[in-house]
Amino acid sequence: MTTSPNSRRAHVVGLGLIGASIALALRDHGWSVTGSDSDDTIVASALERAVITGTALTPEVDLVVVATPAGVVAKIAIDVLAKLANPDLVVTDVAGVKGSIVSLVRDERFLGGHPMAGSELRGLSGARADLFQETTWVLTPTDRTSPTTYSTLHGILREIGANVVAISADDHDRLVAIASHVPHLLAGSLMNEASRVAEQDAVLLQLAAGGFRDMTRIAAGDPGIWPDILFENRDAVVQSLEALEGRLRTLREALLEDERDVILESLLSAASARRQLPGRALRTEDLAYLRVKVSDEPGVLARVTRSASDLSVNIYDIEIAHGIEGTGGTLLLAVDAQQYQMFGEALSALGFQVAHE
Amino acid sequence: MTTSPNSRRAHVVGLGLIGASIALALRDHGWSVTGSDSDDTIVASALERAVITGTALTPEVDLVVVATPAGVVAKIAIDVLAKLANPDLVVTDVAGVKGSIVSLVRDERFLGGHPMAGSELRGLSGARADLFQETTWVLTPTDRTSPTTYSTLHGILREIGANVVAISADDHDRLVAIASHVPHLLAGSLMNEASRVAEQDAVLLQLAAGGFRDMTRIAAGDPGIWPDILFENRDAVVQSLEALEGRLRTLREALLEDERDVILESLLSAASARRQLPGRALRTEDLAYLRVKVSDEPGVLARVTRSASDLSVNIYDIEIAHGIEGTGGTLLLAVDAQQYQMFGEALSALGFQVAHE
Repeated sequence: MTTSPNSRRAHVVGLGLIGASIALALRDHGWSVTGSDSDDTIVASALERAVITGTALTPEVDLVVVATPAGVVAKIAIDVLAKLANPDLVVTDVAGVKGSIVSLVRDERFLGGHPMAGSELRGLSGARADLFQETTWVLTPTDRTSPTTYSTLHGILREIGANVVAISADDHDRLVAIASHVPHLLAGSLMNEASRVAEQDAVLLQLAAGGFRDMTRIAAGDPGIWPDILFENRDAVVQSLEALEGRLRTLREALLEDERDVILESLLSAASARRQLPGRALRTEDLAYLRVKVSDEPGVLARVTRSASDLSVNIYDIEIAHGIEGTGGTLLLAVDAQQYQMFGEALSALGFQVAHE
Repeated sequence: MTTSPNSRRAHVVGLGLIGASIALALRDHGWSVTGSDSDDTIVASALERAVITGTALTPEVDLVVVATPAGVVAKIAIDVLAKLANPDLVVTDVAGVKGSIVSLVRDERFLGGHPMAGSELRGLSGARADLFQETTWVLTPTDRTSPTTYSTLHGILREIGANVVAISADDHDRLVAIASHVPHLLAGSLMNEASRVAEQDAVLLQLAAGGFRDMTRIAAGDPGIWPDILFENRDAVVQSLEALEGRLRTLREALLEDERDVILESLLSAASARRQLPGRALRTEDLAYLRVKVSDEPGVLARVTRSASDLSVNIYDIEIAHGIEGTGGTLLLAVDAQQYQMFGEALSALGFQVAHE
């Protein structure tokens, strides 16, 4: 962790969770890291914790990472590239929307990136050197990006543990539109429409079951950040919305025309795709689901999970479906299919009411 | 639980979870209960478990509950009403879609109903006498329903513990369309559109975070039952789809026209409505959320929940957000706001990485 006079030099602009984690990861690999942030208290804290060793952007720097909010990335990257003549310099960013940035920063030393990590924790205090271990890091090269820039940055990211995937900025933006941005608009629209229908008697939304709660959960978050993100990725979001409107219209027309096959086909292909969604330790077909009735009392969850622990059963997924009066609910537990019968019997023996799904 | 010769008599058609639970609840309140099912093994099992005492529908019956799939309810109810002349007879059903049934069964002795309970467990084996305790039970009287029918059924349902709410069949159907039926179509459409966008490289759906998983979770279920339900409630589902298409179009146009206020306003009203969604033991503002990094190993969940139990902290909601490589994830725990700091510190002391939301 000591830096020699010959160590490579990086500068990180913006010391939030991602920026500070990059600084820590580089530091742990022998880099000398400086950094800056628009918030002086964050800079002071980063210096105190030795996340950075200084704040000056020097001409000798090998790598500049712009880890600011998306709206100011292009301007900062352009300024840095104009200020530093070093032909071997690599400048990258970590913004969640890439198209507008890569079209504005037209320099062979720039390569846009988006690490798919870290949204669970926020700020400098959540930063960790190992945040990017086994994380997918999207790079979005353009025709302008030099091969040297690409291979240099690729090597650095591999060094700190990331799995690098290169796609076009447009493909990236289309994907995050449908997988992240549009879902916020959908959740909000569903919630607003349900409120309108239940307006006369809002308590009737008690009728809403777990599926509705799942689908509107993200609508409860702070909306403040979303207009910026949505406008930043406007083209892709607009295209995704239009495509979804089209899909809903097709289903509506199928209902009106009695085309049962169209409805079933759509639901079947969605079920197949959802079950294949990557990112689980086990494939869906290796998991089995137990439903366990529980009361809303301290300790009940511990009894269930302690039993799992005692039997070396890993709970891969867990969810509480609350009773509509809030007096208890049902635990939905995903466990290894080979263990679920044994675990179900153990829970039954403890007096829980268990159903297999 | 013994039945006297003078006990009231009920007959339940369809001995699934709801039908059998109604039979048990009535039996425990001194009713004499007979029943039938299209599946002979279920009838045998119900007789063996004393859920019913016989299978004959006799003219002396006071109450007939039709607890079959929605598609055959109207025919069975009409047959029963034609067969039995008793003017004090009450016939009801428990189907999840009401409009078509109440418009077909035109008899003052009929009153449609929909108990909002029990979807977590299925079949006769899940039946419980107390299933309807504190459960909302929607009744959908029409102009034709006699006041006596209404007050009799209302009294019986109160007796077995349900909270009765009366709304029109159309209002009921509109509400379940937007809160239950349309969400299935939305989840499927979102999943299908994401698959299409990621078609070239499906692994890119690794980029999909927890919100996307939440919103598409119900799409993974067995689609088989849904065409029937959707066609049963076609009018309301079509109206809801049209309304949602309109809301998405409005948001899309606002993006194109740079109307940031329209976007923000929509997200703000949805956030407010979602936070007020009833059905929690505590109001949202009384809950605080802890995020805890966990590994995918047996026992880790037990350590967290045992700690909660030791400190008498009740976990009101729990969710695992998996890391995109499936190697561990983040627990999202909703706890009483007054306990969350203490609990967070206890978990930190146990070596967990905790973030407050």
